[in-house]
Amino acid sequence: MRTVEWNYATSQLQMIDQRLLPGELTVAVFDDYREVSQAISDMVVRGAPAIGAAAGFGLALAAQQSTARKVESLHSDMEEAANFLKRARPTAVNLTWALERILRKTYCVMDHGSADDLRLAILNEAQRIADEDVEINKRIAMHGAQLIADGDVIIHHCNTGALATVDWGTALGVIRMAHEQGKKIHVLVDETRPRLQGARLTAWELTQYGIPFDIITDNAAGYFLRAGQAQKVFVGSDRTAANGDVANKIGTYMLALATHDNGVPFYAVVPTSTVDLSLASGGMIPIEERDQAEVLGLTFQGMLAHPEGATARNPAFDVTPHRLITGIITENGVAYPPYGENLERVVKKKETP
Amino acid sequence: MRTVEWNYATSQLQMIDQRLLPGELTVAVFDDYREVSQAISDMVVRGAPAIGAAAGFGLALAAQQSTARKVESLHSDMEEAANFLKRARPTAVNLTWALERILRKTYCVMDHGSADDLRLAILNEAQRIADEDVEINKRIAMHGAQLIADGDVIIHHCNTGALATVDWGTALGVIRMAHEQGKKIHVLVDETRPRLQGARLTAWELTQYGIPFDIITDNAAGYFLRAGQAQKVFVGSDRTAANGDVANKIGTYMLALATHDNGVPFYAVVPTSTVDLSLASGGMIPIEERDQAEVLGLTFQGMLAHPEGATARNPAFDVTPHRLITGIITENGVAYPPYGENLERVVKKKETP
Repeated sequence: MRTVEWNYATSQLQMIDQRLLPGELTVAVFDDYREVSQAISDMVVRGAPAIGAAAGFGLALAAQQSTARKVESLHSDMEEAANFLKRARPTAVNLTWALERILRKTYCVMDHGSADDLRLAILNEAQRIADEDVEINKRIAMHGAQLIADGDVIIHHCNTGALATVDWGTALGVIRMAHEQGKKIHVLVDETRPRLQGARLTAWELTQYGIPFDIITDNAAGYFLRAGQAQKVFVGSDRTAANGDVANKIGTYMLALATHDNGVPFYAVVPTSTVDLSLASGGMIPIEERDQAEVLGLTFQGMLAHPEGATARNPAFDVTPHRLITGIITENGVAYPPYGENLERVVKKKETP
Repeated sequence: MRTVEWNYATSQLQMIDQRLLPGELTVAVFDDYREVSQAISDMVVRGAPAIGAAAGFGLALAAQQSTARKVESLHSDMEEAANFLKRARPTAVNLTWALERILRKTYCVMDHGSADDLRLAILNEAQRIADEDVEINKRIAMHGAQLIADGDVIIHHCNTGALATVDWGTALGVIRMAHEQGKKIHVLVDETRPRLQGARLTAWELTQYGIPFDIITDNAAGYFLRAGQAQKVFVGSDRTAANGDVANKIGTYMLALATHDNGVPFYAVVPTSTVDLSLASGGMIPIEERDQAEVLGLTFQGMLAHPEGATARNPAFDVTPHRLITGIITENGVAYPPYGENLERVVKKKETP
């Protein structure tokens, strides 16, 4: 099954509840777009491509929920719902990208269709976004897997697998493709504090795929890089600026520094939907600061890991400057520095199938 | 009370059990040196200066336990006990330093004293090491506090406070001294995976001292440095090589890289007892790899944070190259680059009181 999927029998959205993994594989069912927005905020679903698809289907739910009979008033309900959904999380650009793509599509229907035509067009476009995500990820994986050699030990941050997308994954999809091509690889899985998406989700996916791995604390990656025990680093991106700066899960910047300091290649794996050419540099990407409970909600050997009354700061993302990035892998090929020219060219390229 | 303390009424060693903090303040009592060795391995006591003092008193217990009546056979028992204690943890040099200092001292007694004279000499030297540690830490703190300005936000890694030493602390002692001098400071406390000494111990100490702080995940330090939200970084050292390379708690290297990348001063706070001039560079420092259970023994929001059967790697220290270190603060003053000359000069200097 897909991480994010429309159920055509019941007209509901189904998503794997990622907060419960690896202990439980539970599917949450939605028929209210406001609950989808809450699920994105609460990280029932996470990962830039997956939240893009979830928001798209969220808009399809909103269209279903709207009682508007005239196409204009339905459209205005849709704009309202899209604005509501956009506020669920600020950093990943896919959320906005998916919603705007669907709204743009609806303008043509408005001119010559009914409200129900519009409802159908919205669902169809949301489905198209989801289907394209899987296809795009596989194209990314083919480009990226060429960069992995037999015997490589690869460091991976956060979760960028099937769970972070509709299916297949981005950075983890590259690793999976290399494995399916028969290359012997080993993954060092950054546990990825505070929400431990590496230890919980990536380790779970790697177990399913039969790819050997060890979990490491985020702060240990530098040790393995300096010891020559890792040959490549692959990470995802929640938003990439025009100059190649990458906003990704907190810790990516420090991992990139340690990778660069040891002359090891560092690749960001980026569907072009997460590239925001309207932003000149990463400094303009809004960074979400989440609830301190995510940092403090930890027990170690059965005991609370902080003194009573302690407070925490919890930025969810950081920006890795492009100077630390060896290559940006997209579905249209790999962009190399200088990104100012090469990233735009790759993003705007239509790959001949 | 001190973290590590000899009880003269009962002839036992008392140590705060640091595994139980911040939940419980419990004092563990020892009368067998083998149990002291186990307590060092299990991290009942941790922090380079504290384990040096603990090992010294461990040798005093071994002298008490030995039934030798001749000074030569007691001395040979002591050598055996010292070798046993040295194996408890490999990275911190203080363990070996304290034991060898006591053994050296005993040679003079051997020439003209009884076995009981030797027993007393060993306890006295262990006590002297403990007392000197407190005095040295306060001298370190006076030198270091001059580098802290009113209003500074300081990032600190692991625990280097009273709990890591006999009393007062090294890097955290510097921060505490600045606070006692009336400077308004704020500490960003690296939680320090896997054993969370920052979130558990440093946060607890800061609460006692009334110093404001926030806990952050280790991988978030780069975010705050890049955002200009931290003005200084202070860390400890478990062993410092002659060229200024510092072996310290895992994550120190990545923190140093992020600090350096943003032009922020990075100070290692180092009693001269932790400087190993016999090692040309940090690459020669043995790095302990501890049990994977420390990485995997985590629950997040009440659930096990990794899939069943997952494995982990757990290096406990890493080496920060001297090129990333702004200054090395010792009890004899601050050494600045080039460390090849300046560190040795500071280590060998006798400060006029």
